[in-house]
Amino acid sequence: MPFHFSTEVIVRFAETDAAGIAHHSAYLVWFEAARVAYLAEHAGGYQALRDKGIESPVVEISVRYFSPARFDDKLRVYARIFDIRGARFRCQYVVERDGERLAEGSSLHALVDSRTFRPTRMPAWLREAIKVAESNNSSIDKSQLSQKGLMR
Amino acid sequence: MPFHFSTEVIVRFAETDAAGIAHHSAYLVWFEAARVAYLAEHAGGYQALRDKGIESPVVEISVRYFSPARFDDKLRVYARIFDIRGARFRCQYVVERDGERLAEGSSLHALVDSRTFRPTRMPAWLREAIKVAESNNSSIDKSQLSQKGLMR
Amino acid sequence: MPFHFSTEVIVRFAETDAAGIAHHSAYLVWFEAARVAYLAEHAGGYQALRDKGIESPVVEISVRYFSPARFDDKLRVYARIFDIRGARFRCQYVVERDGERLAEGSSLHALVDSRTFRPTRMPAWLREAIKVAESNNSSIDKSQLSQKGLMR
Amino acid sequence: MPFHFSTEVIVRFAETDAAGIAHHSAYLVWFEAARVAYLAEHAGGYQALRDKGIESPVVEISVRYFSPARFDDKLRVYARIFDIRGARFRCQYVVERDGERLAEGSSLHALVDSRTFRPTRMPAWLREAIKVAESNNSSIDKSQLSQKGLMR
Repeated sequence: MPFHFSTEVIVRFAETDAAGIAHHSAYLVWFEAARVAYLAEHAGGYQALRDKGIESPVVEISVRYFSPARFDDKLRVYARIFDIRGARFRCQYVVERDGERLAEGSSLHALVDSRTFRPTRMPAWLREAIKVAESNNSSIDKSQLSQKGLMR
Repeated sequence: MPFHFSTEVIVRFAETDAAGIAHHSAYLVWFEAARVAYLAEHAGGYQALRDKGIESPVVEISVRYFSPARFDDKLRVYARIFDIRGARFRCQYVVERDGERLAEGSSLHALVDSRTFRPTRMPAWLREAIKVAESNNSSIDKSQLSQKGLMR
Repeated sequence: MPFHFSTEVIVRFAETDAAGIAHHSAYLVWFEAARVAYLAEHAGGYQALRDKGIESPVVEISVRYFSPARFDDKLRVYARIFDIRGARFRCQYVVERDGERLAEGSSLHALVDSRTFRPTRMPAWLREAIKVAESNNSSIDKSQLSQKGLMR
Repeated sequence: MPFHFSTEVIVRFAETDAAGIAHHSAYLVWFEAARVAYLAEHAGGYQALRDKGIESPVVEISVRYFSPARFDDKLRVYARIFDIRGARFRCQYVVERDGERLAEGSSLHALVDSRTFRPTRMPAWLREAIKVAESNNSSIDKSQLSQKGLMR
């Protein structure tokens, strides 16, 4: 399952902790930044979704940390959306530094009405945009992806 | 100008940085926590204000840092509200650890309609509650306040 | 598997997001605060461990979110440590508001030398302290635990 | 006093709050990111300084907020370093969105030994690098700077 999208994140000093490494909660923020950038590139943006009265709260999230990121590290965060069904979808993430996988994660999202927080189906245009994004073989330079990054 | 209110904050590991100390942005969060606790004790809470459609965004903030706070430090955050005029008010803060002043700060707040972000006057009940709070001489144990903490 | 430890967290305004709820990354910070408070009560504190040159970085974390927490909510965060083996241990968490389970999570931790980040075994005193903590039936009021909170 | 350096920041969802705007503490993190990017471009990076055993803790910070930033806003953060004397220096910041000034701030920094936290003088190479950076008229496209951004 290849990734067709990635974005760069630089570890901020505010994101480090007294162990001298990026705090483990920062990865969730980077995953979200990658998810938002993905939607910006492929589907008019997360704000477009919010403007239509839809939020996509996180229902489940998990992260595996392999090696610590440190202050000022330039990270590449890969993201993909898959397993869309009704009012739910899943994302996967890989965080790399110079081709070394530092962490990977996945999240399950609900789609809800932003006022009532009741489930709502993914709009057809978004489903279609994601389908196109995930079948697009040219959107990122494959050579950037380490072998480890290509497969799970 | 004595403080009549204080609350306790324990420095979280997530709030530290790679210099081994609490990140300087954490103090703004602690000031806010103290401000919220102050309003909870004296004026029905900040949420009561929000429920009436009023937000109080920060217009100015300043902090002076004297000595670093570290992970797991038990801090006392003093807060007071003063200088209420129309749609604005000011707060002052002192952060102490075992009577040692680590930082002090002040903030200027607007009162705005939460939808339009237009200025709105402080409700009379809130103005009155703050007046009572700030004239109350018994609400905190004066012996907790270091001499430095008592005056600015 | 009952919890013998819990701590209180109040949702800070800084922890909310534009969806009007506590941001999902805040739960990791609350889990950590509960873990630290647990160790403070039972094992001389996490700082005691750090003073001995040991860090316990997060190797894996997962969270399931059932219902959103909101600004100023008073949350109870249950934590327990279990499955200690060599240089690793696991924690489990439940976040409740008025007996309603809002989220649950688990984390896997390594024990490493704080300079080399090489694995190191859990000190015997800590293993013993956790064993005592987890067998203690009286440390929290069972009636606080919802039925859902008692079992997984 | 013109700015010769700026960097882009996109408002993260995690940086917003329940008032629907970027939390005021986020600006300190953006100022820091701009400061770090400035040093990376002009002086071998903040990490170069840290590698020499020097930290530059914030001694004072102040921010004035004019208009709220919102989720996904593309912000330009201008930064400059000035008033270097002995073991202290000052920075100034302006945050703009499409030429509109949203906030401005300043910080005072100490230079300290990272172990003892004792003051240490700014290394000559850093002082020189900043001098060059601040006299460089070509490093940013002047047309990006709004009239308001050019002067203080």
